[in-house]
Amino acid sequence: MLVKEKVDQALALLDEFDVDCWLTFTRESEICGDPTVEFLLGSYVTWHSSFILSRKLGAAAVVGQYDRAAVEDTGAYGRVESYVKDFKPPLLEIMKEIDPRTIAVNWSVTSEIADGLTHGMYLTLVEVLGSIGMADRLVSAEQLVGALRQRKTDTELAAIKGAIADTEAVYGKVAGFLRAGVTERDVAAFVAAEFAKLGVDTAWQADCCPAVFAGPNTAEAHYPPTDRVIEPGHVVSMDMGTKRDLYCSDLQRTFYILAEGETDAPDEVKRAFAVLTESIERAVATAKPGVTGVPVDAACRDFLRAGGYDEFPAAVGHQVGRYAHDGTALLGPEWEKYGQKVHQPLEPGMVFTVEPRISVPGRGIVTVEDMIVITESGAEYISTPQRELILIGS
Amino acid sequence: MLVKEKVDQALALLDEFDVDCWLTFTRESEICGDPTVEFLLGSYVTWHSSFILSRKLGAAAVVGQYDRAAVEDTGAYGRVESYVKDFKPPLLEIMKEIDPRTIAVNWSVTSEIADGLTHGMYLTLVEVLGSIGMADRLVSAEQLVGALRQRKTDTELAAIKGAIADTEAVYGKVAGFLRAGVTERDVAAFVAAEFAKLGVDTAWQADCCPAVFAGPNTAEAHYPPTDRVIEPGHVVSMDMGTKRDLYCSDLQRTFYILAEGETDAPDEVKRAFAVLTESIERAVATAKPGVTGVPVDAACRDFLRAGGYDEFPAAVGHQVGRYAHDGTALLGPEWEKYGQKVHQPLEPGMVFTVEPRISVPGRGIVTVEDMIVITESGAEYISTPQRELILIGS
Repeated sequence: MLVKEKVDQALALLDEFDVDCWLTFTRESEICGDPTVEFLLGSYVTWHSSFILSRKLGAAAVVGQYDRAAVEDTGAYGRVESYVKDFKPPLLEIMKEIDPRTIAVNWSVTSEIADGLTHGMYLTLVEVLGSIGMADRLVSAEQLVGALRQRKTDTELAAIKGAIADTEAVYGKVAGFLRAGVTERDVAAFVAAEFAKLGVDTAWQADCCPAVFAGPNTAEAHYPPTDRVIEPGHVVSMDMGTKRDLYCSDLQRTFYILAEGETDAPDEVKRAFAVLTESIERAVATAKPGVTGVPVDAACRDFLRAGGYDEFPAAVGHQVGRYAHDGTALLGPEWEKYGQKVHQPLEPGMVFTVEPRISVPGRGIVTVEDMIVITESGAEYISTPQRELILIGS
Repeated sequence: MLVKEKVDQALALLDEFDVDCWLTFTRESEICGDPTVEFLLGSYVTWHSSFILSRKLGAAAVVGQYDRAAVEDTGAYGRVESYVKDFKPPLLEIMKEIDPRTIAVNWSVTSEIADGLTHGMYLTLVEVLGSIGMADRLVSAEQLVGALRQRKTDTELAAIKGAIADTEAVYGKVAGFLRAGVTERDVAAFVAAEFAKLGVDTAWQADCCPAVFAGPNTAEAHYPPTDRVIEPGHVVSMDMGTKRDLYCSDLQRTFYILAEGETDAPDEVKRAFAVLTESIERAVATAKPGVTGVPVDAACRDFLRAGGYDEFPAAVGHQVGRYAHDGTALLGPEWEKYGQKVHQPLEPGMVFTVEPRISVPGRGIVTVEDMIVITESGAEYISTPQRELILIGS
């Protein structure tokens, strides 16, 4: 059971980060719940719920009566308290038993994945813990939550590889469907049908998964397919991912639509593709434990810039996990909006995308997104990297 | 377009609640985003994003470059600023132009639907607004967010009614499938296939939608179907809902499996069902604008208790909307865990469930969940209330 595996991993992290007590505190977790609950329970909770991991008591939970059975079924909690009218008495009893020096809770300025505690729930916690003199013990659990989410277990990595295989299989079929005359929406409908045949979900919101960008002057990213018609002489780029066993893939591929009489892509497209894929290799060669995201991003970005191309307006890679965008550590430049994410050292078990892009005037967006895992000694591909433009006969 | 309809509604609410400026501030909204973004944009945002509604500037947004087109497409924003490296300069420029007395943001101790601002994002906002001397202007937007979500427009109400019709149609088919000898899981698989035929999603997590409780001694609520076999002489209760055009339904129905030689349910089951449905009528007759949830819940709860039945361990009704559990105002008792929710006056346009339950020893759970909308003068059913036990031949 994955929940037990992750809860056990979290208990071990208490020692590593010298955390006495880690408290995840949430309610109606389907609506704006803490994303960490996906690891601690694997289903939604309704009323105010507390998941308390401590060196003294191990894993304990305080949940509403209707959620008790689901928590017990995980086999991960040595102690489950449930309530009907008021969560405070059982929570306070456990906190008094533990009497921790500090209580790590899920807030983070740096990272959304460690920032599942809403401000209203923070205020509630300050009041409730204040009643037993513990309000000033609250600290951020950012490091622990980050490690739990980012250091993928073998089970998690296998799920991601499964999702990659699904997406690669569908890309293979897309190559047989793409042709001049079909629209971005036609391609998206074809992909949706293939996903349905496989019985897989999209890795992100379905209206942008797949994203399909036909030719020049498109929205470039994060935009649904349109009625734009694929034309000969244009580049088509796609971005899609699937979810298998709760974990995502996220891959981009680039196709070129041959114009009449052409047997290969024009030089400017071929050159952009060659520089792009070499820039990915440079990033992957730089990634290893202990290095931060900045030099990895720079290895790619600088190579593109030296090749005469514009900088892409985003980090070169993000982590992938339960969500297509996951984790704290990011392969990005020192831009204000990325804050501390790009200064986090990489660790074995982190899974990243590498996804630079080049806009070729009059042709379209050349973009490839591969996926890697950080290993003890470096990084290795877990997708099959695209190293040739996919040529489509017109 | 629903987004424009809700943004226009929100602009009108600024006057009603005397709010100078309402700021929704979120990032990576798929992961632990503010549920209010579903109304303000209708898709996910990636980087730090601000949706700013003010009497002075109308509707404005500051989003990452990749999200700009999606915001513009809503037609709801008079001003859209996008950025690549840092969200602060465009946000601060707009805030300086508005120079509001107070800045209402989405936190709430009372209500999860108005509590979309995470604590990390709150700290970010305090720092960023502090740089222009506005940090002490932050106040809770709970009232405005609640009204926006709870006062359903005609478009929203039509979507909910569509979802109710879908669920009622599937319940009709379930009555033809249910019989002694099939398991809870068999029933769930049948329902899943019917949902797929209709092309609808489940209103909550699929492993508990439908919930199926066959006979006595089940988990009673919030628990996935099991291999328990449906037996003659037992009550089967079900809880399920569908989603159509983004809005949910949530309905429970009770079936009785006739034992050999029986032509009707036994007296204790019939009596429980009669008391239960009358208790629903009492609650519905009490619900009207200006009344709070406490007397509505009490009308139902007291009638059950007077009939000699145990109290059910939950509020008698919750709102329904984008989620099966939605809104702030709640039809519930004055229990600590419900806080201020049960003291909110009901308003026209709110959609509630009414769902008492009675456990009949040796038989199972008798439970009916209907849906109502609050009108100017009272409340009316928007589902077809179950007023007869559904008898299943063995």
